[in-house]
Amino acid sequence: MNPKHIAVLVGSLRENSFSQKIAHALAEQAPASLQLDVVEIGDLPLYNPDLETDAPPAPWQRFREQMKLAQGVIFVTPEYNRSMPAAVKNALDVGSRPYGKNVFGGKPGAIVSSSPGAIGGFGANHHLRQSLVFLDVLPMQQPEAYLSGVDKLLAADGRFVPATAEFLGKFMTAFSTWVDRVARG
Amino acid sequence: MNPKHIAVLVGSLRENSFSQKIAHALAEQAPASLQLDVVEIGDLPLYNPDLETDAPPAPWQRFREQMKLAQGVIFVTPEYNRSMPAAVKNALDVGSRPYGKNVFGGKPGAIVSSSPGAIGGFGANHHLRQSLVFLDVLPMQQPEAYLSGVDKLLAADGRFVPATAEFLGKFMTAFSTWVDRVARG
Amino acid sequence: MNPKHIAVLVGSLRENSFSQKIAHALAEQAPASLQLDVVEIGDLPLYNPDLETDAPPAPWQRFREQMKLAQGVIFVTPEYNRSMPAAVKNALDVGSRPYGKNVFGGKPGAIVSSSPGAIGGFGANHHLRQSLVFLDVLPMQQPEAYLSGVDKLLAADGRFVPATAEFLGKFMTAFSTWVDRVARG
Amino acid sequence: MNPKHIAVLVGSLRENSFSQKIAHALAEQAPASLQLDVVEIGDLPLYNPDLETDAPPAPWQRFREQMKLAQGVIFVTPEYNRSMPAAVKNALDVGSRPYGKNVFGGKPGAIVSSSPGAIGGFGANHHLRQSLVFLDVLPMQQPEAYLSGVDKLLAADGRFVPATAEFLGKFMTAFSTWVDRVARG
Repeated sequence: MNPKHIAVLVGSLRENSFSQKIAHALAEQAPASLQLDVVEIGDLPLYNPDLETDAPPAPWQRFREQMKLAQGVIFVTPEYNRSMPAAVKNALDVGSRPYGKNVFGGKPGAIVSSSPGAIGGFGANHHLRQSLVFLDVLPMQQPEAYLSGVDKLLAADGRFVPATAEFLGKFMTAFSTWVDRVARG
Repeated sequence: MNPKHIAVLVGSLRENSFSQKIAHALAEQAPASLQLDVVEIGDLPLYNPDLETDAPPAPWQRFREQMKLAQGVIFVTPEYNRSMPAAVKNALDVGSRPYGKNVFGGKPGAIVSSSPGAIGGFGANHHLRQSLVFLDVLPMQQPEAYLSGVDKLLAADGRFVPATAEFLGKFMTAFSTWVDRVARG
Repeated sequence: MNPKHIAVLVGSLRENSFSQKIAHALAEQAPASLQLDVVEIGDLPLYNPDLETDAPPAPWQRFREQMKLAQGVIFVTPEYNRSMPAAVKNALDVGSRPYGKNVFGGKPGAIVSSSPGAIGGFGANHHLRQSLVFLDVLPMQQPEAYLSGVDKLLAADGRFVPATAEFLGKFMTAFSTWVDRVARG
Repeated sequence: MNPKHIAVLVGSLRENSFSQKIAHALAEQAPASLQLDVVEIGDLPLYNPDLETDAPPAPWQRFREQMKLAQGVIFVTPEYNRSMPAAVKNALDVGSRPYGKNVFGGKPGAIVSSSPGAIGGFGANHHLRQSLVFLDVLPMQQPEAYLSGVDKLLAADGRFVPATAEFLGKFMTAFSTWVDRVARG
């Protein structure tokens, strides 16, 4: 059986960001039933309805095409100013439009938020969830994933410490179960 | 006495958006103690810490300089996907950085959200408020401004109907009082 | 086939509240696959961990037993002070405890919020959703239900006007589909 | 000069709760300009508009009278199910009513949230802030106070470790400044 394609959106645009490392670890830990692929969001022009012409910006088109092929979506994101980064919100706005063409609708979703501090990106995590209601993304509720002190979870070799790797593995197993559970009959 | 300079950030990038019209109406209705000026946010590249070099993007620098001069800030915004538009979040992210150089800190703020539907941009309004906590913007709490059915509040001449204009006038008077109240002694 | 039992929690404790009327209309409009029953929450003492003894308050025990039997849960609620009423939050707190005995976990859920004003209980609706993440309630995302101007949606005979009744019927049909979709195999 | 009376609402009803201990530490650390007094909220019947007669429940009357005398309010609260405890929400609901008699309006406010886990009560903290908008409480924005791992912040003598005590002292000093700043001229 072919694995299901899961789009991974990485909320930090910084090279070698913690979110990018988490995304890679999730891909490694994913069961064989899921194939994770990062979909680029950093080159998307800010959403502006006036650009929604016959020829919208090429990155918008590329992003929308890639998302249409995905059978699920995972957001890996830091918190900026107690909410999701603009890059994440922009991906939601671009993917939700034009009216009636929401590329996220009906897909299972999951969120991993992180922060160097204690709060684990809670504000980003839940603001994102509020948008997912409107976008009709079906969120995995448990386990939640808030990686606090993310800078201290990496070993000298640049990989996550065993406890974190194990948690991310369990997270992916649970997501695989969730994807199967909500797959339309 | 010189009027205080208040920056107005318009959340929709569309030409002639409802938010733009509201911004203009607020400027007209403002008491003489306040001078409202729209500060452009549509040209700001998506926030990316890697661009925070000795020469950050010119629009970031322009935006930060303009905001530093402002003595208050008003956000006029639609709701996209139950939250604030990416353009608004991006302005917050750009203005909050680099670390220690938050251009919003300590300034009085206010929010006017709107939507063609019934909800009046509630989701945008309150997600924005959550970010303002971290940014140390001092928000006017009352009156709240949710303009529901905004497309029906404009008369044939393109101006807001009297009830809405009057509400926006009262909102600006209250904001002027708030600005005075929290001005550092 | 037996209908599934769906618990309905009514967020207003007022006699003949709008929420109560909505709950009744939902029960009437529900497809034969679902049996809706209001579960009382108004008599639950405020959650206090010190009362979690061998003999917790009788209403807590009654509520927990009733919820355990339910195969889904619908919240019908007004908004108080831009959030859910204390009565609703208390039902969540009581049902979530003691640790490991969450009565809501894994059940499909839906929310109908309402207000006499324009906002349709948006603040209550989404605060409730944030709690449902932790409680592992599986929320129907679409359609959302915000009944604005609820006092004007009732006809002289005390029943909802046809457009509202029809919307509530579609909402229940969608919920029935959602319940089937997430039922464990 | 007489100190200003600040009402402290404690979100956990448990004896010797962490929130209670934090409240006591805040009172100890407060500058002489502020007098902190805990106002009981655990005995307030759940808000029900039908009880809003000529003789509302005695605890409601007692609470409302006490709050009217306060010149500011501090909420010290754990997080229950990713939001504020029902006891806190109930105090807001009771104090906001009847219509036009909101006892919180115009008062400066502050929030200290805590949790044994990492998240520091973020969900409770910000849901509470959303209600404060409607209630016209003027919130101190910075510093925010999220006490993560609160069970590990207490020394053997039952008092907070020096770093936490010092933080709470700075918090109270900042609040005193905020109270002065927003005091009506």
